[in-house]
Amino acid sequence: MSKKTIIVFSGEYDKVMAAFVIANGAAAMDDEVTMFFTFWGLSALRKPGNRAGEKTKLQQAFSAMLPKQIEKLGISKFNFGGLGRFMMKKVMKAANVMTLAQLLDTAREQGIKIIACTMSMDVMGITQSELIDGIEYAGVATYLAEADEGNVNLFI
Amino acid sequence: MSKKTIIVFSGEYDKVMAAFVIANGAAAMDDEVTMFFTFWGLSALRKPGNRAGEKTKLQQAFSAMLPKQIEKLGISKFNFGGLGRFMMKKVMKAANVMTLAQLLDTAREQGIKIIACTMSMDVMGITQSELIDGIEYAGVATYLAEADEGNVNLFI
Amino acid sequence: MSKKTIIVFSGEYDKVMAAFVIANGAAAMDDEVTMFFTFWGLSALRKPGNRAGEKTKLQQAFSAMLPKQIEKLGISKFNFGGLGRFMMKKVMKAANVMTLAQLLDTAREQGIKIIACTMSMDVMGITQSELIDGIEYAGVATYLAEADEGNVNLFI
Repeated sequence: MSKKTIIVFSGEYDKVMAAFVIANGAAAMDDEVTMFFTFWGLSALRKPGNRAGEKTKLQQAFSAMLPKQIEKLGISKFNFGGLGRFMMKKVMKAANVMTLAQLLDTAREQGIKIIACTMSMDVMGITQSELIDGIEYAGVATYLAEADEGNVNLFI
Repeated sequence: MSKKTIIVFSGEYDKVMAAFVIANGAAAMDDEVTMFFTFWGLSALRKPGNRAGEKTKLQQAFSAMLPKQIEKLGISKFNFGGLGRFMMKKVMKAANVMTLAQLLDTAREQGIKIIACTMSMDVMGITQSELIDGIEYAGVATYLAEADEGNVNLFI
Repeated sequence: MSKKTIIVFSGEYDKVMAAFVIANGAAAMDDEVTMFFTFWGLSALRKPGNRAGEKTKLQQAFSAMLPKQIEKLGISKFNFGGLGRFMMKKVMKAANVMTLAQLLDTAREQGIKIIACTMSMDVMGITQSELIDGIEYAGVATYLAEADEGNVNLFI
């Protein structure tokens, strides 16, 4: 048993999926896992529907460009306005691979620590009320303390 | 002597090149190296010409979007339909830098362990007959076991 | 006190910013930090205004496509010809977050070791006279030696 940390910087469906597959795999092998969501990766933690929060006009504009929830993330290549993701999800289903929403649920069931980066939230104008419940909020110092204990630390 | 692992998630010429340069450099210093190719990175392991394998229509469509072989990968910026890669390869040649195909050959000559991610293959509809010979096939559990032994573990 | 290394491969404003935030955070906690700039990441080390150096026509063309200085880097999503970066910098300022140029200055003040990858410089036609002063020049062997001493090694 050891510890793994993953910074989820990217907000693309395929990259976030890779992050969760590694994280869930490690947790299934009894590793302690911390996922630190920052920048575009924060989109994966968005609560569906809820877009509240007090924002400046600029934050509103920035925030409006982000996907509204985890299953709406685009893929990093060939997205074609969502067609790529649609196809990818189809083949995933056919291959019995979990969707991102299912992977997130599994991560939480397995006790993976999910941290939202507060500095990125400030920059992107994302408030706690917009993100899913039961996660932690912290900055780079917390990440570094976790990574110091990790034997595998990835940036995705 | 220590161990390094690299997840090659990206399928862009420049990123795959960075992965091989690091991997070959480590192997040249007598490190044990494992490269785990997943998602778009699998394109780097495609056998030229061979597109066989039984696929669903969706897998065919998905697979058709992928580069056919390692020297056809696009670069991550300024690709301009292949022009960027063309220019990059020209300057690489002038600078006596190895092409991706040469880097792959060197990696194999140096005994670097090359693993294709079976879950990604299922999702993307890529069969073993489409990939180069002499590689291994495994999933996330194998990657994690390798990474646990690594002192440097990168996600590219 | 331990050691961290970060390969900065990407040249996007947001990713380079993430690299510096982690690096500066670690240095503030008395860690030794090495940043290895390669490929597009080299753009972050460009001296403003200076475009000299003897180049082939191809290197000139390749080099002309790169941002001229650190504050001109595009962001990895929604860049819209610079608009995304402009907005991001606006909200960063409002959130009292340092710009990239300030983060770089802080990194240097904190004694973070900044290395430019010589192989990438050759490929991209970037000469030492185009990069900021006070940095080191080395290849993959130096990176690997640094990473072997690191307990956290990221590829960004």
